[in-house]
Amino acid sequence: MAKYTVGVDFGTLAVRALIAEVGTGRELACVSRDYPHAVMTSSLPDGTPLRPDWALQHPQDYVDCLHEVMYEVICQAGVDAKDIIGMGVDFTSSTTLAVDEKGAPLCLTPAFASNPYAWVMLWKHHAAQEYANRMTQVANQRGENFLARCGGRISSELMLPRLWQIIEEAPEVYEAADRFVEAGDWIIQQITGTRACSANPASYKLFWNEHDGYPSKAFLSAVDQRLAGVTEKLSHELLPLGAKAGEINAFGAEVTGLAMGTAVSVTCVDAHAGLPAAGVAEAGKLVLILGTSGAHLVLDGNEHEVPGLLNMAENGMIPGWYAYEAGQSCCGDHFKWFVDHCVPADYVHEAEEKGVSVHALLTKKAQKLCPGESGLIALDWWNGNRSVLMDADLSGLIAGLSLQTKPEEIYRALIEATAYGTRVIVENFEAHGVAIHEVRVCGGIAKKNAMLMQIYADVLGRRLEVVRSNEAPALGSAIFGAVAAGSARGGYDDIVTASNEMGALDEKIYEPVAENAGIYDELYAEYLKLHDWFGRGGNDVMHRLKEISRRQKEFR
Amino acid sequence: MAKYTVGVDFGTLAVRALIAEVGTGRELACVSRDYPHAVMTSSLPDGTPLRPDWALQHPQDYVDCLHEVMYEVICQAGVDAKDIIGMGVDFTSSTTLAVDEKGAPLCLTPAFASNPYAWVMLWKHHAAQEYANRMTQVANQRGENFLARCGGRISSELMLPRLWQIIEEAPEVYEAADRFVEAGDWIIQQITGTRACSANPASYKLFWNEHDGYPSKAFLSAVDQRLAGVTEKLSHELLPLGAKAGEINAFGAEVTGLAMGTAVSVTCVDAHAGLPAAGVAEAGKLVLILGTSGAHLVLDGNEHEVPGLLNMAENGMIPGWYAYEAGQSCCGDHFKWFVDHCVPADYVHEAEEKGVSVHALLTKKAQKLCPGESGLIALDWWNGNRSVLMDADLSGLIAGLSLQTKPEEIYRALIEATAYGTRVIVENFEAHGVAIHEVRVCGGIAKKNAMLMQIYADVLGRRLEVVRSNEAPALGSAIFGAVAAGSARGGYDDIVTASNEMGALDEKIYEPVAENAGIYDELYAEYLKLHDWFGRGGNDVMHRLKEISRRQKEFR
Repeated sequence: MAKYTVGVDFGTLAVRALIAEVGTGRELACVSRDYPHAVMTSSLPDGTPLRPDWALQHPQDYVDCLHEVMYEVICQAGVDAKDIIGMGVDFTSSTTLAVDEKGAPLCLTPAFASNPYAWVMLWKHHAAQEYANRMTQVANQRGENFLARCGGRISSELMLPRLWQIIEEAPEVYEAADRFVEAGDWIIQQITGTRACSANPASYKLFWNEHDGYPSKAFLSAVDQRLAGVTEKLSHELLPLGAKAGEINAFGAEVTGLAMGTAVSVTCVDAHAGLPAAGVAEAGKLVLILGTSGAHLVLDGNEHEVPGLLNMAENGMIPGWYAYEAGQSCCGDHFKWFVDHCVPADYVHEAEEKGVSVHALLTKKAQKLCPGESGLIALDWWNGNRSVLMDADLSGLIAGLSLQTKPEEIYRALIEATAYGTRVIVENFEAHGVAIHEVRVCGGIAKKNAMLMQIYADVLGRRLEVVRSNEAPALGSAIFGAVAAGSARGGYDDIVTASNEMGALDEKIYEPVAENAGIYDELYAEYLKLHDWFGRGGNDVMHRLKEISRRQKEFR
Repeated sequence: MAKYTVGVDFGTLAVRALIAEVGTGRELACVSRDYPHAVMTSSLPDGTPLRPDWALQHPQDYVDCLHEVMYEVICQAGVDAKDIIGMGVDFTSSTTLAVDEKGAPLCLTPAFASNPYAWVMLWKHHAAQEYANRMTQVANQRGENFLARCGGRISSELMLPRLWQIIEEAPEVYEAADRFVEAGDWIIQQITGTRACSANPASYKLFWNEHDGYPSKAFLSAVDQRLAGVTEKLSHELLPLGAKAGEINAFGAEVTGLAMGTAVSVTCVDAHAGLPAAGVAEAGKLVLILGTSGAHLVLDGNEHEVPGLLNMAENGMIPGWYAYEAGQSCCGDHFKWFVDHCVPADYVHEAEEKGVSVHALLTKKAQKLCPGESGLIALDWWNGNRSVLMDADLSGLIAGLSLQTKPEEIYRALIEATAYGTRVIVENFEAHGVAIHEVRVCGGIAKKNAMLMQIYADVLGRRLEVVRSNEAPALGSAIFGAVAAGSARGGYDDIVTASNEMGALDEKIYEPVAENAGIYDELYAEYLKLHDWFGRGGNDVMHRLKEISRRQKEFR
């Protein structure tokens, strides 16, 4: 009798649920639903305005959308809910939520409905940048060990600088909050009644580790005396990936349609769930997740200090391994910007006439170009640079433009730029001791855009394998769900076996073409020169342009 | 009884004829016609293919189009041809034509119809680049004086490197040619029967001057023994601007509709004819001509060595003055490229709905931006850089791009970039002793685009005056025609009086706004850093990208 497991992937704009068969990883159905409030960047639901850099979400959206996708996906899969043995949940992170002692979001109480600080701060909420910068300074001065695990810089996408900002700017919220939790932990607490949280986001987003726990009281009070007790508002019951957080309770059964008692795994940072979906549970296999942005995950047996990586944690993803993560701020977003803002009307008409998307038309035209033929080179920093420069104030650049430059040439140059950015990350890993023998790519782009994949293979000079699943994080979560269920219930007792059985690759493989790789070596050398000049202080023009721009916008 | 004069402006794609009243400069009519063969870049009329970098024209187009515009303009002006006392002709230059001893173009004879080297080489024909480079080397080694008058570099847009290429690659054309002439001299020879040529293009495009004549035989034979006698194929009867080349003969009367005996002035390089139209016949008044590309003309009482200028000649434009010229390779061309290739369909629809051009829509949107607000900066090198870097292999750059960047922001950044380029030229003139007290702008852009003019005023930190005529070169030619006629026939005896009476300014003046100028000072400092790094050897990436691109195109 076949058993099934469900993975739920809470993304930036939508949640998707996927049901897969235990043992094979065969996907039976996948359903997604957009959050009604999407990302709130200009005002709260009651009209309270938000400042720039704010990005909030509505916690009720998570529950409502989870309900809808779960009933729909079980229906589409045509399976009996009793045969679904486990559930896993991955979530964007840090997506930070203030709750009262009952676990209810403060923002849903009348007292805090108009208080922006009480709402869910989405990963891309950047309002605490100044606090993050000052916190980095203090950590640097004190030589805090955890800095080495987050590329030497505390990001405003993490929870601690946000909590500091709340203490400073909205102490009433800080006071009223019993705890601050990851939205992924919170949703699992709602449907299981557990108080446990996941060690995975805590390791990557809160600098927690098994040996030292959270950053020390000494550090926190050096930052601000009021932060000294902040860890009392964080969870201390942290379980590793694959562990069972709890079981579906009565409320959970109503929300999800799953049977009461179904095992639920602890939450996972969304990108990290790509690892088991790619069948990776050992060192040297880079998993490249290409979405609106890009993530680069790799395991290694040892601890290395890798500058410019996003973060690293021992046992952070797969027990027994150090798991490293780097990231590119901009991948699909980049190409979408181009298609939305820079493609001329005659191309749009041509695409309409041919009945293809503008992306497809541009790809077809760009595919006919040889590497280097356009004379263009770009820096892929439209959304700043996460790795290896860790600098959100860098910006995009195109050089080599001429009166003959065509849109498809720019489009290709943008794709090439993200490939160069990936090569910087790969070379940086290797230069600092993290070996990479294989590269596995997942994400919609990897399946849909063969030209992009070939360019990446040529630029990296490496064979690329494609992960079979179209929804790798959701499948990865389903795999964690099967592990949480355990073999006694028809699941697995360890992630490695589960990944090997349920993660899988496509037959399609991209091999580098030697002569293209040769040209791309030349172009990559040019990319590196520009990368270092603009990104490592040779010319700080990008920072100054942002500063002037901010000043002029304030002035308006 | 009012007298009239006609100016004929042979541009890159069209010829226009303008009739103006002597004494007032009042314009009665202006008519233009596109050349049927336009610019031949891929094949000759008989299908013979052309290599990249070739740009040829058909000499019959000049005669046929001249005929059409002249009959039409006289008709539209409603004047008696007998009251038209003079005619002036300006022409793109060097636009090089091989003729037989009767002055007939070789390319129109059956023997040479399929020989690309026998056709008119348009100013933007760049096939002789390699010859130009080698010629510059020899001139440098020998310390030739004329180098100081052409910014230290011999351009492939000049006649000498082209003749060397013909000797080397098509000796049969060189042998068969009795002379090589500027197309402007040639058309005047056709309609007047004169053998005289104009000193103006000879000074600027052939390094001729009154004291030394053409470059020496010693130099020419040092370049290539076969070039030693080349000046025998050039005109030695050279007359200054405003001088009468001849009078309309029977054929000329048929072609132009003018009375036989009408005075025709010697030809003028098209941009140079803007000077009298701007009423400028003295030092310190920069005339900025904004068209597809940009030209910067200024007179000075002394000889200065100005690096990176296009060229300089004593008595080259107005007798008694040293006339300096700099240029920008790309101005309107730049904005047109953007509108043609980078404006999204929804903007095109919006423009259609509002019944305005896309340029107008972009301008309206861009006008709402503060200086620096977009965070963008560009290098205006889409067509290389003429002044002050004199490097055709430089290319365009945009930095500061983000996912929020809008088309109107890029459009504005391109306009700002050309303004920065102009400021580099102005500061370079002043740094090398050529004072600039006033700036007068002519060209369609100056009349139509108030936003651009204000940006130029703010970037330059100077008041800008606008030349009244919409067709400054044609009006300038008409002024030269009136001077050729002389006071005895109701014209003038000198250019200064003619310019003062017939050249004129608009009432509209653009004053710099202090706070914008302050921001632009900051941005200009950033422009200069990028300009010098990419343009003066800090990073030769643009050259290498062009080299890779050429290699890859050959390889296809």
